[in-house]
Amino acid sequence: MIITLKKNAPQEEVDRLHRLFEERGVQVHLIQGVDFNVFGLVGDTAHLDERDIKANVWVENVQRVSAPYKLANRMFHPEDTIVSVGGIPVGGNEKIVIIGGPCSVEGREQICRIGREVADCGADMIRGGAYKPRTSPYSFQGLGYEGLLDMAEARKETGLPIVSEIMSADKIDEFEETVDLVQIGARNMQNFDLLKAVGHMTKPVLLKRGMSATIEDWIMSAEYIMAAGNPNVIFCERGIRTFEKYTRNTMDLAVIPILKERTHLPVIIDPSHATGDWKLIEPMALAAIAAGADGLIIEVHDMPEQAWSDGAQSLKPEKFAQLIEKARLVAKAVGRDL
Amino acid sequence: MIITLKKNAPQEEVDRLHRLFEERGVQVHLIQGVDFNVFGLVGDTAHLDERDIKANVWVENVQRVSAPYKLANRMFHPEDTIVSVGGIPVGGNEKIVIIGGPCSVEGREQICRIGREVADCGADMIRGGAYKPRTSPYSFQGLGYEGLLDMAEARKETGLPIVSEIMSADKIDEFEETVDLVQIGARNMQNFDLLKAVGHMTKPVLLKRGMSATIEDWIMSAEYIMAAGNPNVIFCERGIRTFEKYTRNTMDLAVIPILKERTHLPVIIDPSHATGDWKLIEPMALAAIAAGADGLIIEVHDMPEQAWSDGAQSLKPEKFAQLIEKARLVAKAVGRDL
Amino acid sequence: MIITLKKNAPQEEVDRLHRLFEERGVQVHLIQGVDFNVFGLVGDTAHLDERDIKANVWVENVQRVSAPYKLANRMFHPEDTIVSVGGIPVGGNEKIVIIGGPCSVEGREQICRIGREVADCGADMIRGGAYKPRTSPYSFQGLGYEGLLDMAEARKETGLPIVSEIMSADKIDEFEETVDLVQIGARNMQNFDLLKAVGHMTKPVLLKRGMSATIEDWIMSAEYIMAAGNPNVIFCERGIRTFEKYTRNTMDLAVIPILKERTHLPVIIDPSHATGDWKLIEPMALAAIAAGADGLIIEVHDMPEQAWSDGAQSLKPEKFAQLIEKARLVAKAVGRDL
Amino acid sequence: MIITLKKNAPQEEVDRLHRLFEERGVQVHLIQGVDFNVFGLVGDTAHLDERDIKANVWVENVQRVSAPYKLANRMFHPEDTIVSVGGIPVGGNEKIVIIGGPCSVEGREQICRIGREVADCGADMIRGGAYKPRTSPYSFQGLGYEGLLDMAEARKETGLPIVSEIMSADKIDEFEETVDLVQIGARNMQNFDLLKAVGHMTKPVLLKRGMSATIEDWIMSAEYIMAAGNPNVIFCERGIRTFEKYTRNTMDLAVIPILKERTHLPVIIDPSHATGDWKLIEPMALAAIAAGADGLIIEVHDMPEQAWSDGAQSLKPEKFAQLIEKARLVAKAVGRDL
Repeated sequence: MIITLKKNAPQEEVDRLHRLFEERGVQVHLIQGVDFNVFGLVGDTAHLDERDIKANVWVENVQRVSAPYKLANRMFHPEDTIVSVGGIPVGGNEKIVIIGGPCSVEGREQICRIGREVADCGADMIRGGAYKPRTSPYSFQGLGYEGLLDMAEARKETGLPIVSEIMSADKIDEFEETVDLVQIGARNMQNFDLLKAVGHMTKPVLLKRGMSATIEDWIMSAEYIMAAGNPNVIFCERGIRTFEKYTRNTMDLAVIPILKERTHLPVIIDPSHATGDWKLIEPMALAAIAAGADGLIIEVHDMPEQAWSDGAQSLKPEKFAQLIEKARLVAKAVGRDL
Repeated sequence: MIITLKKNAPQEEVDRLHRLFEERGVQVHLIQGVDFNVFGLVGDTAHLDERDIKANVWVENVQRVSAPYKLANRMFHPEDTIVSVGGIPVGGNEKIVIIGGPCSVEGREQICRIGREVADCGADMIRGGAYKPRTSPYSFQGLGYEGLLDMAEARKETGLPIVSEIMSADKIDEFEETVDLVQIGARNMQNFDLLKAVGHMTKPVLLKRGMSATIEDWIMSAEYIMAAGNPNVIFCERGIRTFEKYTRNTMDLAVIPILKERTHLPVIIDPSHATGDWKLIEPMALAAIAAGADGLIIEVHDMPEQAWSDGAQSLKPEKFAQLIEKARLVAKAVGRDL
Repeated sequence: MIITLKKNAPQEEVDRLHRLFEERGVQVHLIQGVDFNVFGLVGDTAHLDERDIKANVWVENVQRVSAPYKLANRMFHPEDTIVSVGGIPVGGNEKIVIIGGPCSVEGREQICRIGREVADCGADMIRGGAYKPRTSPYSFQGLGYEGLLDMAEARKETGLPIVSEIMSADKIDEFEETVDLVQIGARNMQNFDLLKAVGHMTKPVLLKRGMSATIEDWIMSAEYIMAAGNPNVIFCERGIRTFEKYTRNTMDLAVIPILKERTHLPVIIDPSHATGDWKLIEPMALAAIAAGADGLIIEVHDMPEQAWSDGAQSLKPEKFAQLIEKARLVAKAVGRDL
Repeated sequence: MIITLKKNAPQEEVDRLHRLFEERGVQVHLIQGVDFNVFGLVGDTAHLDERDIKANVWVENVQRVSAPYKLANRMFHPEDTIVSVGGIPVGGNEKIVIIGGPCSVEGREQICRIGREVADCGADMIRGGAYKPRTSPYSFQGLGYEGLLDMAEARKETGLPIVSEIMSADKIDEFEETVDLVQIGARNMQNFDLLKAVGHMTKPVLLKRGMSATIEDWIMSAEYIMAAGNPNVIFCERGIRTFEKYTRNTMDLAVIPILKERTHLPVIIDPSHATGDWKLIEPMALAAIAAGADGLIIEVHDMPEQAWSDGAQSLKPEKFAQLIEKARLVAKAVGRDL
């Protein structure tokens, strides 16, 4: 950690800080310059908070050299983590996984019907929302526990693992029992109590990026889950909020190589939420595969115009099957299987 | 609601949609043009979801005319709502309220000491965090329930109402008992389960804006709380995330006149989080008063460089007292008391 | 164009507006509702400005149905435009083009040397900056006209067309004589006088997206060039500015399918500026190809650490050759040649 | 400047860089740590480019300690610069200036009529656009030189200095002759050739912030003008582009104290463009005064609904007069005159 002091910092303050950092167990190096003084802190600085140090009026700037995360950090865990979801490996050089299904579970018949269709298309897992984060309290809020049981039925029929979003720590037991991959939605990426709660689960976690989360914030949220005891975290990019209005969000594919350099965890991409427009899903899905994604999660509905939510960004099964065919070719071109 | 259909939408689809909207209980008007057809829907459209209608491939665009919120909507509630916080009225033309205190409760002695100081400076309420949303799992996470009890002691000593952030629905009882104003933090603005939970409380709610929340998203979150039964919501702007790096966030003061035009609820401003830099707090606080804010919430610490969190954006009590004096003059200049 | 009037707009004002729009030569349809009145304008509305109509206090909202651009609009020009750059076709289903070269021309020897290297790697054109837009007046500003002549020499040696950025209308003649593809940089995307000037050139134009330009703004800038008489415009995405700090910009690949749906012009991608980090260039380049890009423009330098500008985002020739090999496989996977 | 090297940088590379920096005339200090090595460069580093240094693969990070600007830097010019505009002082503790007038000059009669009205309201200068940067080539582009002559007539009638936007370096002579304050618009903030050109003028320059310009970018653009010889630069904030849709832009008032701390130049605020909505202008204008602005520039039109541009964000003269009255009270409250 590099701490720049203001030019005119009094010597006693420089000395006081020097002692203070040494007491925190890090080695301290001081550069004295004409225009500034700089402390270089060497050692474990993850427990020091940049902003707290900046509170000192003589401090001009603080810069981390080592990352503030440890468990997620590839530096301390060089091999890829491969997360098993209901027996299916995700990450490393494993086969790219495809997750398909409706935005919302609308009933047992619907999720089983669409589940069978996505299975027939070649998907590896089924997604479906039972608890729905909706902007409006007047919109459909999901079928709740019934919806999870409906999904479990779809799993039974198809043999595919199921993915669903958890919105509240008091549902941990429901999800632990029924679901294979527990999703944390974008709006809850920094719901730290929920992160800690899923950190106590045995099921793997799909951690979506918050709408305005930096990559570092996002890794820190993974670190929360891991620090609570659950090492099986999969990142999921779903677009960030920008000024652009033709798309719902702006999909940031640079996260794939960046997360893979800095962490050892798998990364999958959600082109449905990232674009909000079914016509854009296929090109963005292919782009994600080309950039090195470990998987895709895509909204599929057989009657999008009658879906209870997010129909505008849902693919029909035949388009989904087509996408998988094309994605397979791109995967092969970049040396991966799908 | 105005729905634009694509130029080449087949007549049977136009007819089908016409019937569908009528079945949903709204009146339907159709304009047929050379380049497009337009449906104008008249009546209560709050239960229709724009994105669901867009799922139809023949729909080009959907635009709301009436707002998607009702309870928060000034159109249906023309008078200002005045929220009582422990007996202190907030909003309308009432006296502007000043809330001061440390970012975190660090112990009973600390919160009582700073509480007395902010009271002496002329503050109306005391803030302090007992449960802390921290980006890093390795940072101080707050004293929890002990911290709330410490705050209650500060209230006893000073007679001032207390404000603290709730992070999880399972703490509703603790907060209902101890706190006068329950804060929903920026990261939980769309934690819908938590919004519903505080909607069942009898205590008023301070709803911070999410880092990338549009004003409409924010009003919809207030609507969640109100729809669950709690009409006492106060908005709190704390800055949005932009590309600018010299400030922690970008404070958006236009929210004040906009929220006051569209809703009937009070608006207060948090210049501490909005800027992240104690030197910027005073000018931004004065600006907020000039723009019509109903209150300010400001971080105050007597030893910022030793604060357990957010020292960099905390004012010392003497600066806080100075700020209140200046704010009083600005308030008077715009016809308000403080 | 759909114009929503406020609920309480007086009848005489509604009538006055009705006449006014008719006088502007568009057909006017009026829907009268309980909560609002709506005008639907049918006909050529490109000459009406939404914001000017909004100036009327009785107008609640204005929404375009038809796009504000005509010459760039695929609706009026369904076939792909194929732009010839020094004889090389760009766009349509033509071979994907690869443009490589240094950020700045540093001298005749350097540009010819690197030019030969990128040619050997299989590039189709050479890029190089002679006039450099630099944030600081103290940074190297480019070799100017000498630099253009140096590039012309590189063309002579390699036979490849050359691309360079123009920063000022008074250099039109220099560029017309020497350069094959005239680049408008991100910072000048809305330098309308410059757009008009290049609109009078016979050479094609590479139009970079502004750092905070919406896709619609960007198409309107192409429309400026086309309206001035130059139909040969190629779009170039180079990333937009967001809150993310790990990358220089956020590359927005959704522009590819969107621009191809709404316009008939080619789209190429600049992963060097979009990421600012050489390690991210390859995965982002492959993603761009998978998403349907018509070309790539990439910074290449044989000694990046000694480059006079932008070394951090330059590839060494061997990495560039490798990237082209991989891009060729991805292109094939999506049915294109490279 | 602080340069962090990667952990495993080879010693010969560390030595090579050490020599390289010394050759550039700065003193070099090296900290060697377990996890990293750090160079601290002391001396004049304004001619070093962070990104060029980052090009070295062994460099992890580069951080400036001293700002990259010199002429605009308050450190080297502690007293406030007071810019004289046609005899009226702007900045320091001088009277706050109010600039009013239409978005576009629509003819001699119009600008003289509105000019007299804004003068009667108490404005200090008249604004009006003769060359108009419009998003669409089909929108009104301004009256050009005729418009400037019309403005000069308005100055003659009212005695007030005039402000107008320059869009192209080839109009320097026209502006030098006719205008008192030369405006650089947001879209041209990084049109470096234009910045250099106005740097050669004797007239002061009003430099608007680009829509996605950081404060540092903006100061660097001022530095361009100053480095070319013109020390009389006034900053003008007009809002930045964010995801918020209820306003045209997001007004960032924190720029006022930040620019005043880091530079010695005056700062004025444009609430018309920052909000795009006439109803928001007054509260935002008062906020700007409270935050310490040296002036306001406001669009005024007597018939906004018939204005040729930007009517939606124009105030009628009576509202403008009212705003000035209120602004005077706020100015007094913060110890300034208006």
